[in-house]
Amino acid sequence: MKGLDKYDLLSDLAKRRGFFWPSFEIYGGVSGYMDLGPLGSRLKRRIEDLWLALFVQQHRFVTISTPVITPEQVFAASGHLQNFKDLMVTCNNCHRHFKADLAISEAMPGRTDIAVEAMSPNEIDALVKDNNIRCPECGGPLGQAELFSTMFKTNIGPYGDVTGYGRPEAAQAIFTDFKRVYDASRERLPLGIAQVGTVMRNEISPRQGPIRLREFTIMEMEIFFDPAEPKCPHIARLKEVELPLLLAEVREKGKSDVVRVTITEAVERGYVKTEWSAYFMAVSLAFAKTLGIPYEKQRFEEKLPAERAHYSAQTFDHQILLDRWGWVEIAGHAYRTDFDLKAHIRGSKVDLSIFKPYATPVEKKSTVLVPLDSVIGPLLRQQTQMVSEAIKGYNPEDAKAAFASRGFFEVHGFKVYPTHVKFEDRNLRESGRRVVPHVVEPSYGAERLVYSTLEYAYTRVEDRVVLKLPATLAPVQIMVFPLMPKDGLDVTALTIVDDLISHQFDVEYDESGTIGRRYARADEIGVPISVTVDYGTIKDHSVTLRDRDTRSQVRTNWELIANLAHEFLMGKMQFSQLGQPVVAKADE
Amino acid sequence: MKGLDKYDLLSDLAKRRGFFWPSFEIYGGVSGYMDLGPLGSRLKRRIEDLWLALFVQQHRFVTISTPVITPEQVFAASGHLQNFKDLMVTCNNCHRHFKADLAISEAMPGRTDIAVEAMSPNEIDALVKDNNIRCPECGGPLGQAELFSTMFKTNIGPYGDVTGYGRPEAAQAIFTDFKRVYDASRERLPLGIAQVGTVMRNEISPRQGPIRLREFTIMEMEIFFDPAEPKCPHIARLKEVELPLLLAEVREKGKSDVVRVTITEAVERGYVKTEWSAYFMAVSLAFAKTLGIPYEKQRFEEKLPAERAHYSAQTFDHQILLDRWGWVEIAGHAYRTDFDLKAHIRGSKVDLSIFKPYATPVEKKSTVLVPLDSVIGPLLRQQTQMVSEAIKGYNPEDAKAAFASRGFFEVHGFKVYPTHVKFEDRNLRESGRRVVPHVVEPSYGAERLVYSTLEYAYTRVEDRVVLKLPATLAPVQIMVFPLMPKDGLDVTALTIVDDLISHQFDVEYDESGTIGRRYARADEIGVPISVTVDYGTIKDHSVTLRDRDTRSQVRTNWELIANLAHEFLMGKMQFSQLGQPVVAKADE
Repeated sequence: MKGLDKYDLLSDLAKRRGFFWPSFEIYGGVSGYMDLGPLGSRLKRRIEDLWLALFVQQHRFVTISTPVITPEQVFAASGHLQNFKDLMVTCNNCHRHFKADLAISEAMPGRTDIAVEAMSPNEIDALVKDNNIRCPECGGPLGQAELFSTMFKTNIGPYGDVTGYGRPEAAQAIFTDFKRVYDASRERLPLGIAQVGTVMRNEISPRQGPIRLREFTIMEMEIFFDPAEPKCPHIARLKEVELPLLLAEVREKGKSDVVRVTITEAVERGYVKTEWSAYFMAVSLAFAKTLGIPYEKQRFEEKLPAERAHYSAQTFDHQILLDRWGWVEIAGHAYRTDFDLKAHIRGSKVDLSIFKPYATPVEKKSTVLVPLDSVIGPLLRQQTQMVSEAIKGYNPEDAKAAFASRGFFEVHGFKVYPTHVKFEDRNLRESGRRVVPHVVEPSYGAERLVYSTLEYAYTRVEDRVVLKLPATLAPVQIMVFPLMPKDGLDVTALTIVDDLISHQFDVEYDESGTIGRRYARADEIGVPISVTVDYGTIKDHSVTLRDRDTRSQVRTNWELIANLAHEFLMGKMQFSQLGQPVVAKADE
Repeated sequence: MKGLDKYDLLSDLAKRRGFFWPSFEIYGGVSGYMDLGPLGSRLKRRIEDLWLALFVQQHRFVTISTPVITPEQVFAASGHLQNFKDLMVTCNNCHRHFKADLAISEAMPGRTDIAVEAMSPNEIDALVKDNNIRCPECGGPLGQAELFSTMFKTNIGPYGDVTGYGRPEAAQAIFTDFKRVYDASRERLPLGIAQVGTVMRNEISPRQGPIRLREFTIMEMEIFFDPAEPKCPHIARLKEVELPLLLAEVREKGKSDVVRVTITEAVERGYVKTEWSAYFMAVSLAFAKTLGIPYEKQRFEEKLPAERAHYSAQTFDHQILLDRWGWVEIAGHAYRTDFDLKAHIRGSKVDLSIFKPYATPVEKKSTVLVPLDSVIGPLLRQQTQMVSEAIKGYNPEDAKAAFASRGFFEVHGFKVYPTHVKFEDRNLRESGRRVVPHVVEPSYGAERLVYSTLEYAYTRVEDRVVLKLPATLAPVQIMVFPLMPKDGLDVTALTIVDDLISHQFDVEYDESGTIGRRYARADEIGVPISVTVDYGTIKDHSVTLRDRDTRSQVRTNWELIANLAHEFLMGKMQFSQLGQPVVAKADE
């Protein structure tokens, strides 16, 4: 095991037992793609279900499901076409491509003061030249830096009628669908709209296994709220939680001290700009804890302005500590303001604002601009009405400003002077106001969470691997063994398997090798409960249950397992409550 | 409602209440794409879970999860690059594109004898000319037919290092991963490997709403079995089921008579080529029934050879009757044989066969070809060993045939005559055999099932819509109403909502309008149970439960709802068992 880190150890286990492996292996593979095997894909679906429960269902928020391929117009409006690019350098010798920030950080480690994201290609070229930065692979000279669009491009329909892109985030369809969902949700605000689905990012030479993928399952929610009513009603529930924040102002000083504050303090001190962000950061902390990642291995790193996506007014990366890669982002918490909705209002010419009626209509004094037809009529004759309407449509404040500066303003080529109009104060009834909601976004990659969960579960006990997965997440929940595969013990064991499957459990059956070896195999993939059928079972239906983590054993009736296991896996019963204690035998 | 079919009625409901709508609407839309809203996306996930339970978990089969974008090599080997094409005709006047079979079937309805799939572009051109077939949209003249690849093409990595395609089926990664999954599954056979995930098909001008999408979620399983052991062990469980088959031989006669046979009869009479296909067709029938589609609205249409995909030796489409489109495919049951595994063995040069050891090694008589070194040695000198080895490697049967026809065979340029060799019978020990498994595939599109489920649930009762969704599938499972939103009834109702959410139910709360209107709104989206909190609830915790389908009501304690609703939604309790009967009040 010497020299192998947890990623190596886990990758070996993952291939052998069926958690994950590189895609397209028999064809030599393509970097940035990963397959999830039988255990990995089940673990992923359980993580998705947990996320949906904690982020969506708990708040009576909603999910939608929209296509991956998205027409160009959407990303032109959202700014992705212009901004979703990475700086790339290419080796003139081996012709490999590298993300500029990776090539630079490998050559100049620890230089947190260099913000590659904020630099232009020319600035990168200068930096590469001044510091003699060479190819990280072959040491050859690097060519000029370029911007590379990291969206996958394709054509929709025959002859490229419509250019489409693989979506790099699920958020845009949530914005373009906002009004539909708002209406279908009976005009509720705040409203969270979530999506779990495939996204694609055409990364330049990804080299970090499951951590940087060209395709992954995003779990992303946009929470829409009225900026005039920014309170998050759920905060009280998590008021004790302390958020570990690594603030941008601290990072800018080259430091990495973490400050721990409650949600309320974080907002009051101005560390986090909205209650909704701070609240979902607290939910995020609890979510990662449920995946088995201790609080002390988690923090929120505030991104520097240059590091933030183009749509974000503030971003905190939820980071966890991994063995090989150090602090790694598992979620982004972005305050997207009304940036995206406004971008799509401009791009589509469709009004995506909502109307918030007042409880009672409000009388409001307002200045209006009134054309004096008796004055302009004789001057304009047939054109009077047209100009008159245009004057009514002119902003009164702009008119005043124009009179003050130039003495007139112009409509339809006609110069309007103060003598042509009058300003009148009127009482207007307003029955409500139009609002473009603000948006806060927590966003996760499911595959990265699958890996992180596995790394934290990976444990060695007396030179055997025990995958201490949280019981709620274990891909195989119950393993059933006959003591011997004969004398009807195998038949009874398979009857129990079928019964548990009919209760929706994920169950496996194993009859080969010694019981000790079977326990070891079950431990290695994190099965929380093993059931052994023996000669006693034939007599009185009793079976032995064995706990993965303590190796303790209890005896119970097999017809009760479904109910007991349900309570145990949900965390509502202790293992010792599942039956009569058995004096533990050695595993082997 | 006159003139509107179920698709129109449902589409309106679907947009208004949040089941589905066309994608990218605010940008004018792109045909062939559909969004699932809050209710539709939840319904889809429940359909996926049901499919996973019935097809995968029930048989202790497995799932994997692999990328959408797939490198060209994979589809070159699988035959998709060459075969996954549609015949297209383009109007010379309006320049719209059409699938040739659609343009022809619209112009010549009922001509089941014309198999467009089997025709070449030239034959299509002749057909179009002979029958004066015009543009279905504008009546203009049609140009020459062409083949159009219906895979989305893109580049992986900078500068198009690797050409990639959006996968049109999830099956290929299941084949390329077969050995990994087989090994991780401890070399079990038969083995089902399933995948639920996004696929893409660049359809030519799709015009059938949710029925023909350019992107959808496939639910697909490949069942690998040893062709020498083709028995399906699960058949007994479904031996009473009758498969309604519309056979190719019947279709070829221009008829559509359905024959009803059991799984066993279907195989014995040679209607269905494998037990595994016939078995999964029976499972498919039960699955569609659980979605609410009656048996009499289902059939299996055997595809004609020209209609089958290039990899299939036999295909049955599982069809159901829809209001607008008639018989529509909801699943394909294909017998893919060893076509795909062999294609990838050739394409990747990796051995994907498995080794099946015999229980005891077998002695086998075998003829071997032995070079007579004493004869050839003097002729060949230093080259003797090389030629001798080549002779040992030569197939003895081929050698006999060569001697019979030409009198000699050749190795390394040396002519081998009967005098140079002898044939010996030897006893060889074989410890097992290598097998390339055969494969049977059931394959579904989740979005089409969402639509079909909704259409069969759509019911009008006294001029109101009641969506009679199967209770297990309903996106909102329980609706909670306070009789009035005051006097603490709303607070109690929200407490019940939170309690039910903590038990993983999908719950909504509604306090606006009369109780009658709220029932109507709940019925319209298919909520099976509504709970009303009234002044009695404050006194003794009792609430009224109301059944969507019968409108009958019972009274029960609210703390019991979670357990009762679970049993009811699972189909294990009748509504009348959930509490004390209430003399039903009128809904309004």
